[in-house]
Amino acid sequence: MKYFDTHRELLEKAKQAIKDRGYWTPYPEHPKAYAENAAEEGNLAFGKHLNLPYEELGVESENWIGEEVSPYWQTGLGISYPALTTDSLIANAHAASVWGEMSADDRAGILIESLKRVESRYFEIAYATMHTTGQSFMMAFQASGPHANDRALEAVALGHEELTRFPAELDWVKPMGKFDLQIHKDYKAIPRGTGLVIGCSTFPTWNTVPGMYASLITGNPVIVKPHPKSILPIAIVIAELRIVLREANVDPNVIQLAVDTLSAPVTKELAEHDDIKLIDYTGGSAFGDYIETLDKITFTEKSGVNCVILDSMKDIKPVVQNIAFASSLYSGQMCTAPQNVFVPANGIDTEEGHMSFEEVASAISAAVKGLVEHPKMGAGTLGSIQNDATLKRINSGGDFGGEVALDVLEVTNPEFEHARIASPKVIVTDEQNTDAYANECFGPIIFVVKTADRSRNLELVAELARTKGAITCSAYCSDEQFSKRIINTMNHAFTPVSLNFSGAAFVNQHAAFSDFHVTGGNPAGNATFTNPEYIVKRFVWVGNRYFG
Amino acid sequence: MKYFDTHRELLEKAKQAIKDRGYWTPYPEHPKAYAENAAEEGNLAFGKHLNLPYEELGVESENWIGEEVSPYWQTGLGISYPALTTDSLIANAHAASVWGEMSADDRAGILIESLKRVESRYFEIAYATMHTTGQSFMMAFQASGPHANDRALEAVALGHEELTRFPAELDWVKPMGKFDLQIHKDYKAIPRGTGLVIGCSTFPTWNTVPGMYASLITGNPVIVKPHPKSILPIAIVIAELRIVLREANVDPNVIQLAVDTLSAPVTKELAEHDDIKLIDYTGGSAFGDYIETLDKITFTEKSGVNCVILDSMKDIKPVVQNIAFASSLYSGQMCTAPQNVFVPANGIDTEEGHMSFEEVASAISAAVKGLVEHPKMGAGTLGSIQNDATLKRINSGGDFGGEVALDVLEVTNPEFEHARIASPKVIVTDEQNTDAYANECFGPIIFVVKTADRSRNLELVAELARTKGAITCSAYCSDEQFSKRIINTMNHAFTPVSLNFSGAAFVNQHAAFSDFHVTGGNPAGNATFTNPEYIVKRFVWVGNRYFG
Repeated sequence: MKYFDTHRELLEKAKQAIKDRGYWTPYPEHPKAYAENAAEEGNLAFGKHLNLPYEELGVESENWIGEEVSPYWQTGLGISYPALTTDSLIANAHAASVWGEMSADDRAGILIESLKRVESRYFEIAYATMHTTGQSFMMAFQASGPHANDRALEAVALGHEELTRFPAELDWVKPMGKFDLQIHKDYKAIPRGTGLVIGCSTFPTWNTVPGMYASLITGNPVIVKPHPKSILPIAIVIAELRIVLREANVDPNVIQLAVDTLSAPVTKELAEHDDIKLIDYTGGSAFGDYIETLDKITFTEKSGVNCVILDSMKDIKPVVQNIAFASSLYSGQMCTAPQNVFVPANGIDTEEGHMSFEEVASAISAAVKGLVEHPKMGAGTLGSIQNDATLKRINSGGDFGGEVALDVLEVTNPEFEHARIASPKVIVTDEQNTDAYANECFGPIIFVVKTADRSRNLELVAELARTKGAITCSAYCSDEQFSKRIINTMNHAFTPVSLNFSGAAFVNQHAAFSDFHVTGGNPAGNATFTNPEYIVKRFVWVGNRYFG
Repeated sequence: MKYFDTHRELLEKAKQAIKDRGYWTPYPEHPKAYAENAAEEGNLAFGKHLNLPYEELGVESENWIGEEVSPYWQTGLGISYPALTTDSLIANAHAASVWGEMSADDRAGILIESLKRVESRYFEIAYATMHTTGQSFMMAFQASGPHANDRALEAVALGHEELTRFPAELDWVKPMGKFDLQIHKDYKAIPRGTGLVIGCSTFPTWNTVPGMYASLITGNPVIVKPHPKSILPIAIVIAELRIVLREANVDPNVIQLAVDTLSAPVTKELAEHDDIKLIDYTGGSAFGDYIETLDKITFTEKSGVNCVILDSMKDIKPVVQNIAFASSLYSGQMCTAPQNVFVPANGIDTEEGHMSFEEVASAISAAVKGLVEHPKMGAGTLGSIQNDATLKRINSGGDFGGEVALDVLEVTNPEFEHARIASPKVIVTDEQNTDAYANECFGPIIFVVKTADRSRNLELVAELARTKGAITCSAYCSDEQFSKRIINTMNHAFTPVSLNFSGAAFVNQHAAFSDFHVTGGNPAGNATFTNPEYIVKRFVWVGNRYFG
């Protein structure tokens, strides 16, 4: 098929990149790598969707709904989407199951072609992401554009690798002494069945495309149910894939969009439907735990409590700057953002001398304040707050049983005067105050936690990872032996460690083709973007044998 | 490490064989390939275990238990095994978890060396298997000896492949325009935790070693809990592995034997223990379903209803002979044995003319009778019945709501006058009689089921596979189009098809390195010997990042 031939080389490069795990991407991450007027045109294209039905999916429906609100404007986008019933969606997916009979090559060609089409809409998707999630333009561009495409391509490539891992057919010849027993065999990768992909409000494409493309490459039709407040970015991706499917004379219902509202959610009805065999989920832990109890094959990214271990370092300044940025970026609304910074009660050693706990806590607050109030940094780093509940949680928490070392600051975004903005609150507390820090407190907050000593520091962080989950752990330690102990301990809590990150290295960023995102081994989620398990559970190897 | 160097070449060959999937084995299956006096010595070695404590494990215990009974002698073996408490077993496993810190190479070397040691005891294990399971000598030798070793090696090789799939470490260098961002990364395969492997009464090593070696190669300590009536064969395997571990200065409690009795079972206590993270299970569906409900990673082979589709063929004779053998072998106590033969009411076409349903049913009964009464075939094919309950089920069922076309025949085994022997009962019935044929009726029974037509034949078999599970499906069809339909339909019920098997090709035999045993996609089980999923769920990829 033409699409496979066009993209064969890219696919092979992506497969090699997965094995090599070095830096690699076919989709440049910087907006400057694209056409000069692309940003402007993307903004215009985004604007054309406002206050209209979204018809690009080519779906007929009697019912059109939508309730997205821009965190920058704090007004509704007015876009409505076709809202099919669960039964219609399931029946459409079933009717499109011939997708599973196509070859892995043909499916890969179509899927990679769709990513090429998406590439031409990065800027439009970026504005759609800004005005649904509250991300800054730069984050929205990178996360929903090239980085999401990277993750999608990674899933397609690893899928293709697994699907072609064994010979399609062969003759098995067993010497039996007086004669040979010859049996012809074939091996088929049979798709599990229709997949449901449940998106989150903050990363509507980056967190959705891995499961979507992983289920698709392995032959399963997919229904995507985005968060009702963050539909447009993924709707554009789905529309492009449907266009390519039609061009290839394949039923476009291989991929469908399901929409709902906060007051009339359909996710449970979809998830519990007998014909849904695979569920990918990104979002809060309570709903994620429910998803995992269903008798389905599930892939979850829930929430965790990400921690920083401060132990020892050359120089405190780049460390607190790095922490301030990692926690302030998109106002702590990244699933990889650090929430708790653990500091031994007797302080830490640096090459410039010993620092008391209080001095360390002050340095963190000062770094956050400096970043947030920096005229060229503050508003762009923070982005805006996706929804009111996040802000209320932080504000109504008061001192969270500790001391407010830095309160939420007034920050204005000259571009968007109505933007819902909040800088991180810094709470200084001690290890007994588990009610405050030992649960995910989504949004702009940093707990600086005083612990008995360096061993207790590590013990607490590992215990939190084991019991509450963790997607990342950032550690600062200049002592080689203790660094090894941190890594060994955290790894056995199935949590990766980022050691001594400063400068342009941020714990938040998980790069496709290199970093496994979420390990799947602790309560933060049961799956990983993208390891082999993420792929092979989506289909079943069946081997037939032919005699005579 | 020395063992890895010794076995490196064998490991590489095994890894290649998994990819190629052609016939390959390093362990010849025929007893004649081994030393001339090996059978006699093996029998003697087996005899020396009788009526004594089994001390080869090197385990101290205050409590020694055992209640194995030979189906050939119908007397107890009198062998007792050290019975540690669940807490002791778990604590020992925990103490041996340094196993997970060893390299994949070192673990592979030790595990393959243990298979070499097991090879030197094939004949002893064969007699141990005969006198616990009731298998014939030949089956016991092959299944518990070379074929089990094949399956174990396959698990080790695929495990090693997955564990070494990604680089251990590398430098990730991202061009950032004015500078390069360089981050050092490593990737660790962290074992999930202690594995429990629950054995069955009929194939005490073949069904146990895949999970055991799969969990071991991926770094998890393992506790094996065999069926209380079939301990000795796997105890010998475990003893040999413990000897190799001691030689390598590794804690032998990396692998432990747990024993219990029918009246005081310990399996649930073990399975439910918080520290058990992985469970491999072979056995009946009721207990297997319970295992799957536990909050663990489980690999089950339960029971299914294996069917034969009779549609069209050149010649009926080799077909009914093949079916008779496949169903009579070890008296239908193989998980792959066909139970139901579906025949259209209007009969079938052969090149020698049309045959009515009644003629087909008679031909099947006659073939079974001929095989069973054949002086050189009968007793050796049937083996003996592992336990009384199997025999009672067949006998007390009477006509199972159909017509007894062939009753259980008197068969004597000149070697073992007390052997518990039963030939297959053949019941002719129709498709309405689901109470009889639509559940696994473990043991020597064949239902010949009259169905409306060829479409209904297929529909029934697929429906049974979907709802009750199936490990195999044998089909006889000389019509190419309908053959494709059978294969497509059954494959979408996640059931493999063996087409037109006759002569030395039997549906029962699943060869390591080539045949996936159980697909994991229907209720007969959730796992496969051995596909990638069987391996990758046993460990977690964790990637650490180092800056500066």
